[in-house]
Amino acid sequence: MKKTDIKVLHESFSTLGDKTITVAGWVRSVRGNKNFGFIDLNDGTSFNGVQVIFNNNLSNFNEISKLNAGSSLMVTGVLVLTPQNKQPFEIQATEVTIINATTDEYPLQKKHHSVEFLREIAYLRPRSNLFRAVFRVRSIAAYAIHKYFQDNGYMYVHTPLITTTDCEGSDQMFKITTLNFGDLPYTKDGNVDLSRDLFGKQSYITGSGQLHGEAFALAYSKIYTFGPTFRTENSNTKTHANEFWMIEPEIAFCDLDGLMDIEEEMLKFVVKYVLDNCSSEIEFLDKFVSNGLKEKLVKLVTSNFTRIDHAEVIKILKKADVEWEFEPTDGGDIAKEHEKYITEYFGGPVFIKNWPKDIKAYYMKVNADGKTVAAVDLEVPGAGELMGGSQREEDYDKILERCNQMGVDTSAIDWYLNLRKFGTCVHSGFGMGFERLVMYLTGVDNIRDSIPFPRTPKNCQY
Amino acid sequence: MKKTDIKVLHESFSTLGDKTITVAGWVRSVRGNKNFGFIDLNDGTSFNGVQVIFNNNLSNFNEISKLNAGSSLMVTGVLVLTPQNKQPFEIQATEVTIINATTDEYPLQKKHHSVEFLREIAYLRPRSNLFRAVFRVRSIAAYAIHKYFQDNGYMYVHTPLITTTDCEGSDQMFKITTLNFGDLPYTKDGNVDLSRDLFGKQSYITGSGQLHGEAFALAYSKIYTFGPTFRTENSNTKTHANEFWMIEPEIAFCDLDGLMDIEEEMLKFVVKYVLDNCSSEIEFLDKFVSNGLKEKLVKLVTSNFTRIDHAEVIKILKKADVEWEFEPTDGGDIAKEHEKYITEYFGGPVFIKNWPKDIKAYYMKVNADGKTVAAVDLEVPGAGELMGGSQREEDYDKILERCNQMGVDTSAIDWYLNLRKFGTCVHSGFGMGFERLVMYLTGVDNIRDSIPFPRTPKNCQY
Repeated sequence: MKKTDIKVLHESFSTLGDKTITVAGWVRSVRGNKNFGFIDLNDGTSFNGVQVIFNNNLSNFNEISKLNAGSSLMVTGVLVLTPQNKQPFEIQATEVTIINATTDEYPLQKKHHSVEFLREIAYLRPRSNLFRAVFRVRSIAAYAIHKYFQDNGYMYVHTPLITTTDCEGSDQMFKITTLNFGDLPYTKDGNVDLSRDLFGKQSYITGSGQLHGEAFALAYSKIYTFGPTFRTENSNTKTHANEFWMIEPEIAFCDLDGLMDIEEEMLKFVVKYVLDNCSSEIEFLDKFVSNGLKEKLVKLVTSNFTRIDHAEVIKILKKADVEWEFEPTDGGDIAKEHEKYITEYFGGPVFIKNWPKDIKAYYMKVNADGKTVAAVDLEVPGAGELMGGSQREEDYDKILERCNQMGVDTSAIDWYLNLRKFGTCVHSGFGMGFERLVMYLTGVDNIRDSIPFPRTPKNCQY
Repeated sequence: MKKTDIKVLHESFSTLGDKTITVAGWVRSVRGNKNFGFIDLNDGTSFNGVQVIFNNNLSNFNEISKLNAGSSLMVTGVLVLTPQNKQPFEIQATEVTIINATTDEYPLQKKHHSVEFLREIAYLRPRSNLFRAVFRVRSIAAYAIHKYFQDNGYMYVHTPLITTTDCEGSDQMFKITTLNFGDLPYTKDGNVDLSRDLFGKQSYITGSGQLHGEAFALAYSKIYTFGPTFRTENSNTKTHANEFWMIEPEIAFCDLDGLMDIEEEMLKFVVKYVLDNCSSEIEFLDKFVSNGLKEKLVKLVTSNFTRIDHAEVIKILKKADVEWEFEPTDGGDIAKEHEKYITEYFGGPVFIKNWPKDIKAYYMKVNADGKTVAAVDLEVPGAGELMGGSQREEDYDKILERCNQMGVDTSAIDWYLNLRKFGTCVHSGFGMGFERLVMYLTGVDNIRDSIPFPRTPKNCQY
């Protein structure tokens, strides 16, 4: 059973008409009568399976006829081209080897299962139609992101996961340790003796690679990260997970306008790539998960992204004839309901820029007005905030002053601040939560269904 | 200073002869006399910089002449094609804007710095020639891996980092917690109360995505992971780090022979892709880091990989006229000195297969002889073991028996074992440590120099 002898369904079969081939995969369903039957077989390399026709010449005809969903088979037969059908070929079986027949114990049957039920069997749910589609889109979108940045001369940087510095502050970070909770060492003054931990001090798993990314941007001009990040938020909403993947590009000699150009170009590229390479998946998701999904994505590729100041957005929100849950205020944040309104108001994606500095981070460039920072959030229809970025403060004295004003402990980030002494320049970057992108691309509305094995409070099975 | 107005050096300049362009980057060196001078400028998007010629017509001629390495500049000037030179163009400056002039405080000067010194300034070392080359090769190799698997129909799966199950056992895993070490909650019987931790139990960061990868391979046939992994090993060798990246493909309906085919094809693809896309970097590394590097890589692409049983390797080692530090034994492991000998013996990469079962993991398929498992290590000249893989035990009763024999706690991996009940099939997978590949591709001999911010015992700065 050498791999190379087995055809997989994502290959091209157009030249194999009337040839004998072998495929292997899992049964979706079997139907038929006492003379012949049909197997809907899929090996998972293609969204659509292949129809296998078998008849009672086969010695194991009866066993095949009784197979449950999820059984594994190897099928040898003649490939018949059926260009008029959705799946453009079928197989007339000459031999069907049952590798493993599932029993009634198998939890996935050919019927509708709720996403809640499927979450309980995360190790099996990739076999369902829904997750087959979602996780294929996830894989293709991940590759599209790499392709966009690599084709445009960006360096892919693996920023560290284990860290003692973090741009989001340690409140939101998991601590890691090699110490034994049953036998903790203590110092004379009664504290846990972290000098005996592997790194000799308190260390964390990261919430962002931005700071390290900036160090590399000031060497390579254009870099991106793509890796997992962690937050300890004890929050059970549809949009929070404790482990998620982020893309964090940083670009030297690039201001806020340049950054928005890149964000827009990248997103359009990724959406187009997914439309081109996941057409069956998008059609399925459009039909069964989020009506209008395909139209939304097609529209995005050619749409103009509005660019508007935060202050102007607040004016629009205040004028709106809407009963807000959260009243919009001049120096205030933008709530989910506001995001929704504003993308509908402009009928497309909106960059909201130049935010009040008091609600933003210390590393963002303060504008000439002294009140706002050169930060930008991208809001997209149907998903809200998809990316958040800013021009970074590149002046050593200014960033130090801002750290001091905001009470940021500079001792652990002295190297980061030093970047402002050693060949500093205007530079900008953004972060995009990958699960949020997957939700946008697939229409699923719960982050737990966008990632293979979700991690949320009290939920770390598998 | 909009990004789109600034050219970057990795772009093609061949059509811009005699045109006025603007570039921005960092000074490598300035030399000249009182009438004119030369700046070696690089923006990091290309291994080779550009020569900028400036003369005393510029009002800031004196300031430019005195610039230190690492200063950031924007240069506008006329591009002159110089096809006879290594860098096929130069710029005759009409304007040089000094963005940030470094002082003597700047640690990187235009001289040779030791790798030990550069490790101390990990946030600046990507600006040195050595790391400019190594980290570009790292980025291109990472992309080549994605490209190989995506072009061949594999699904990219993000297996979880936070986990309660792990195929390598929890001894080697970092524990994570949101509890406060200064104020730990205790149960009545005096243990730390982990039910009050975010996940309600002891959780870890992972040492492998294999188990989760198998679950996805049994849905999609062909999958790969590419993500960070962690080990707590308190080891200060040149080849150990506590955080490293792994690639772990898993393939359904694939036996050990098929697996070796894939490993060989993938490695050749990646090496060729790096040779094609990092020629300046490989030439530099060949000259200054590892003489013969390029020849070694070129040779690999067309070489035949030997496939030989572990037992045969032991015979060859025993016969060898070598004074071993570790005597080769029939049921024993293969030491570094043996790996070296055997790749030299065969003059190329060697797959060592069918290992004694007693020194291998519970999930590997026991061969018909009852003594060996269908495991394979790939040994390559100059780097030793590069990949380790196996056919996985697909039979439920057999894997359960083996877990019991080996004292493996099955309670946390019941879902993994269940995969053997629900459409199980012959399947195989391997792991490749990405840093080991980067070391092989670049010739650097210390893992600390193959990863942007290395994590080793007592070393978690930045």
